[in-house]
Amino acid sequence: MDLSSFITSLTTSFIIFVILMVLFAWLSTKPGNAVVYYPNRILKGLDPWEGSGSKTRNPFAWIREAFSSSEEDVIRMSGVDSAVYFVFLSTVFGILLISGIFLVPILVPVSITEQNSFLMDSTGNTSAFEVLDKLSMAHLKEKSSRLWASVIACYWVSIVSYILLWKAYKHVSDLRAAALKSTEVKPEQFAVLVRDIPPSSKDCSRKEQVDEYFKTIYPETFYKSLVVTENKEVNKIYEELEDCKKKLKRAQTIYADSKKVNPEGVVQTHKTGFLGLTGKKVDSIKYYTEKIEELTPKLEAAQKSTVAEKQQGSAVVFFTSRVTAAAAGQSAHARMIDTWTVTDAPEPRQLLWSNLPKTYYEREIRQYVVYYIVFLTICFYMIPIALISSFTTLPNLRKLLTFLKPLLDQVTVRTVLGAYLPQLALIVFLALLPKFLLFLSKAEGITSESHAERAASGKYFYFSVFNVFIGVTIGGTLFDSFKEIQKKPNSIVDKLATSLPGNASFFITFVALKFFVGYGLELSRIVPLIIFHLKRKYLCKTKEDLEEAWLPGDLGYPTKIPNDMLILTITLCYSVIAPLILPFGAIYFGLGWLVFRNQVLKVVVPKYESYGKMWPHIHVRILASLLLFQVTMLGYFGIKKFIYTPVLIPLPIITFIFAFVCSKKFYRFFKSTALEVVAPRELKESVNMETVYRSFIPPCLNAEKGPGEQFDESV
Amino acid sequence: MDLSSFITSLTTSFIIFVILMVLFAWLSTKPGNAVVYYPNRILKGLDPWEGSGSKTRNPFAWIREAFSSSEEDVIRMSGVDSAVYFVFLSTVFGILLISGIFLVPILVPVSITEQNSFLMDSTGNTSAFEVLDKLSMAHLKEKSSRLWASVIACYWVSIVSYILLWKAYKHVSDLRAAALKSTEVKPEQFAVLVRDIPPSSKDCSRKEQVDEYFKTIYPETFYKSLVVTENKEVNKIYEELEDCKKKLKRAQTIYADSKKVNPEGVVQTHKTGFLGLTGKKVDSIKYYTEKIEELTPKLEAAQKSTVAEKQQGSAVVFFTSRVTAAAAGQSAHARMIDTWTVTDAPEPRQLLWSNLPKTYYEREIRQYVVYYIVFLTICFYMIPIALISSFTTLPNLRKLLTFLKPLLDQVTVRTVLGAYLPQLALIVFLALLPKFLLFLSKAEGITSESHAERAASGKYFYFSVFNVFIGVTIGGTLFDSFKEIQKKPNSIVDKLATSLPGNASFFITFVALKFFVGYGLELSRIVPLIIFHLKRKYLCKTKEDLEEAWLPGDLGYPTKIPNDMLILTITLCYSVIAPLILPFGAIYFGLGWLVFRNQVLKVVVPKYESYGKMWPHIHVRILASLLLFQVTMLGYFGIKKFIYTPVLIPLPIITFIFAFVCSKKFYRFFKSTALEVVAPRELKESVNMETVYRSFIPPCLNAEKGPGEQFDESV
Repeated sequence: MDLSSFITSLTTSFIIFVILMVLFAWLSTKPGNAVVYYPNRILKGLDPWEGSGSKTRNPFAWIREAFSSSEEDVIRMSGVDSAVYFVFLSTVFGILLISGIFLVPILVPVSITEQNSFLMDSTGNTSAFEVLDKLSMAHLKEKSSRLWASVIACYWVSIVSYILLWKAYKHVSDLRAAALKSTEVKPEQFAVLVRDIPPSSKDCSRKEQVDEYFKTIYPETFYKSLVVTENKEVNKIYEELEDCKKKLKRAQTIYADSKKVNPEGVVQTHKTGFLGLTGKKVDSIKYYTEKIEELTPKLEAAQKSTVAEKQQGSAVVFFTSRVTAAAAGQSAHARMIDTWTVTDAPEPRQLLWSNLPKTYYEREIRQYVVYYIVFLTICFYMIPIALISSFTTLPNLRKLLTFLKPLLDQVTVRTVLGAYLPQLALIVFLALLPKFLLFLSKAEGITSESHAERAASGKYFYFSVFNVFIGVTIGGTLFDSFKEIQKKPNSIVDKLATSLPGNASFFITFVALKFFVGYGLELSRIVPLIIFHLKRKYLCKTKEDLEEAWLPGDLGYPTKIPNDMLILTITLCYSVIAPLILPFGAIYFGLGWLVFRNQVLKVVVPKYESYGKMWPHIHVRILASLLLFQVTMLGYFGIKKFIYTPVLIPLPIITFIFAFVCSKKFYRFFKSTALEVVAPRELKESVNMETVYRSFIPPCLNAEKGPGEQFDESV
Repeated sequence: MDLSSFITSLTTSFIIFVILMVLFAWLSTKPGNAVVYYPNRILKGLDPWEGSGSKTRNPFAWIREAFSSSEEDVIRMSGVDSAVYFVFLSTVFGILLISGIFLVPILVPVSITEQNSFLMDSTGNTSAFEVLDKLSMAHLKEKSSRLWASVIACYWVSIVSYILLWKAYKHVSDLRAAALKSTEVKPEQFAVLVRDIPPSSKDCSRKEQVDEYFKTIYPETFYKSLVVTENKEVNKIYEELEDCKKKLKRAQTIYADSKKVNPEGVVQTHKTGFLGLTGKKVDSIKYYTEKIEELTPKLEAAQKSTVAEKQQGSAVVFFTSRVTAAAAGQSAHARMIDTWTVTDAPEPRQLLWSNLPKTYYEREIRQYVVYYIVFLTICFYMIPIALISSFTTLPNLRKLLTFLKPLLDQVTVRTVLGAYLPQLALIVFLALLPKFLLFLSKAEGITSESHAERAASGKYFYFSVFNVFIGVTIGGTLFDSFKEIQKKPNSIVDKLATSLPGNASFFITFVALKFFVGYGLELSRIVPLIIFHLKRKYLCKTKEDLEEAWLPGDLGYPTKIPNDMLILTITLCYSVIAPLILPFGAIYFGLGWLVFRNQVLKVVVPKYESYGKMWPHIHVRILASLLLFQVTMLGYFGIKKFIYTPVLIPLPIITFIFAFVCSKKFYRFFKSTALEVVAPRELKESVNMETVYRSFIPPCLNAEKGPGEQFDESV
């Protein structure tokens, strides 16, 4: 990449960023958009515009607000998981900043003053260096003693990383402890999940069996058990009923609105067939009222039969003491691992009920199968995509989808399709990949949404590092010069030596694009804004509809963290080779901190709270990036024929030891709850065990009239 | 080894065995020897000669008694650990017997009928086969289709092993559960060990700190804590005092005895200097009485100051509930792994007090250092021994130890020393090795005797397999034909092919020697008998002295199990190559079962009870032997140029999977106690927590007059 295209790319990204920021400043002050730009505050019952309340507020106030917000604010507004994400951003920002402060002013002059106008000396191709390459290690001669500066830089980057990561792990551990220590009553702290309940030999129900088992072991602290049931059928009825209720309300609202215009009102009708397009025309209000009357007793009957007859081999067990629950989650209850598996309970809202009854062996086998599928996906995903691409050509489309023929014959459509069709499969694949990985992670038999998202995030990390980073760097190089290498296999090393720094400028523009355009879109929320306004205009009838239309999502860890990790991996790996990438990486994480501070405080609403369990996962992957950097540098120094290359060998070893020590020291507390943290302390409110118990009853079983009681009696 | 020397060796061993058995049959019926042959029964307060009581009992009655004894008898007389040892013996016996039933009648005829009078065909050396080798796989031609029989045999041995091992693991797990479930009060089930207690920030004693910490977490079930103290000083005084008491008693007894002869009595005197040889002559009774009077208050003062001032960073904590103690041992109490480490308590008698205060990091570092030392010892122990041997030659001895000159100049002494001196260092080393390994294991920071013995046993296993088996088989071969291999490096494979079966007959005699002579000595107890009678005659004065003289040891797991394992490894590895070894191996374990049944019921007294924690250790090592067998066979089939060799590749893989599944399924219950096992049940006696607590106070702190109280108050 030459200098002009490099600058063009940066400028374009920056202009898009400025436009989006102006849009944000303008749009976010409009009161009608408050639900798009401040949904989290509104949901928490706070005034969207903090304090001031004036409509003509400073459009850059959000920056001040983000900086002045404390970690406690983040935890209060969005939970520990969000605070951990900021620890991640600030730690990585710190690593890149401190590395940059040392590396840029030292390595750049060292490179630029080297007398070396030949690069491809081995191939005899004396090309003058690009300006950008002059700033990088590529400009250093082979065996040059100036490489010592790069060696020191490698150690500097590594040591900075170790220190900051250690501090961060400690800090996150404190955050987690503070949250778990909290005197608020959290239902999940009083419960454990019990899986693999063996078939009872005696003639008793599952519930009796579970109750007896735990009452024997914990005669004093056992409270109640909630046996997991097969809810498919009852859930279907429940959802149908809820849907009818919603539709009835909507029909009533429309009818009431129509009365305002016409005193008689327009009777709402709809067709009962497919998508409301076919079938008999009926009076909506009457139809839905009848349907609700019909479904309500059906639901009650289904609830009763489910609770009585469809009990599965797993349960949620409640204790009256947090310590007992925490200790139970860590203790072997049965002699064999495949019976009475007891684990900590996640929050009720993120419990994956359908995974609970999966047996131990099923889970183990599923896990290995999923790992295998992920391995295949990461390594060979190009094969099916290439196959599909070869079929989705214009001629094929015309042949197969004959009804599209008139459309496909238009010139503009053909041009656009001709350009995008070949990549269509890849684009669809990449868009669906996070969902696919999340689906796979859930298929492993994981019990909580947060755990499944962590697992999916890990898989995505491997995919992106393997395919984007390694793919672009090495694959690109090899592919470009495939023929040359065929002739002279030894030239592969020289090729890599020249192309590695060359790729740096590509990655710098990649990082810049990511933060300028990515954060611009994130902050300005253009897409959700448009969708919200469209929905409000054409679809929303009732207040609930409207609320649903602006309801914000969560941060989306399964894709966000692997993406950040990819940027970190790229930045770290090029940090010594092309130190200019460091400021860009630092801006990515610094700006990210600022933008997401705003998002977390005002926009996104977390789906769950895992009390920072994400951190060990992030920590290990940062270390993996660091390791990749160190190994890359080892290789690159080798290519530079630097005879002191072995002085770098301790670095990967230190990284392994550091990872081992950290996992030994900190990890256990993230895996399970330390008892000292939940030791008896005056709780804010006295624990109402019935409320704790009820919070775990799935909504489809939780009918309005005394559901819990019914739930108990019918057993 | 040719046939005649093979038969000679077997016959010699057998004759020694017969002589020892006759000796045993004769000596064991003598009432004076009852304390040597029935100490366990005597200590348990039982009649040495079960039931009959007549002195002219059948000398072979022990065989009938051993066979008729049940597993419950073993557990009652010697604990679960001994029962587990019999499970090991019977399982291995079963594996070898069932393998032998199939392998001997099939593989031997297959080998013997092969038309192959040439072995060293590749070297052109047409030696006629020895009779023994004709029975082995060596007699099969290369690429012979008869090798299929051997392939099937490999599978047969492996599958039999898997099935029997699985059953055994299940059975041992049941034994352990039954023992832990027992309604007898066992102090260790109410206690946990606490290590790595962090320095207290507040101004309070360790004990207050521990009490507060555990009272907060377990407000209802916490009973008391016992802080570990630095007992070196108080222990020294205590031992001195105990020694004085013993000596006083002895002097009094001798004086009383002398009165019977001479009414005045002979006043006991001794010298106070080195070894009683130098110094002032004093009246023993007076001297010791004074000394005791002097030491008793000193001990009390030392006890007080120790308890008050020498508290260490670890403690034993007692709970009033078995479930709490079991759960506490499995739970993380603190957030960091290096503080408040809580583990299950072992029995008080096997607690290694001095290891308790070692900190987490010290333990980790010690562990790695010990592993490293063991690795060096296993691989390079010959080097220092060779060095020492080169110094301990006769001329050197004469030069260095001039006072031995006249002795060394005698011809007979010189002949004997000349024969044994070169191996002296090796003999001393091998004799001290188990003790050295036990010392190393304790240096790791392990908290219980049983765990340390397991660790030592594991180390000894690697030593013996590596040095004896691999050393003899491969090393011997290579060394013998070193020059030939130098000339023709390819001949190494042929050498191995011929020498492997050749070694078989050596190992058969080795196994036979082990069981004929080893078990003969074990059963007849000639050495302890002689020592006892010598002691009784010359040293024992008081009743206590006499009791000490016949007090039997325990089974000695750290050397016994690795030795058995070595035999098993050898037998398994040769089972298919030379199936004749199988009956010998089976006899080793079958006869071992019989002999040790007698020993366990009547002689040995176990030092500790670990409730079968030895089993996972044994299980893994049996599988390691099986793996070695499978890998050896893979190699040997390769040497035989059998093109279907890869059909054996699944075997090692299955072994790994089997080991993994077993460890997953069973191991957790051996690592820690399953809660369902210790769930509240009516205990035989109501738990006297004070007794439980006191049983853990080390004897040197447990003075006679109200020691526990003093212990508590002074804190």
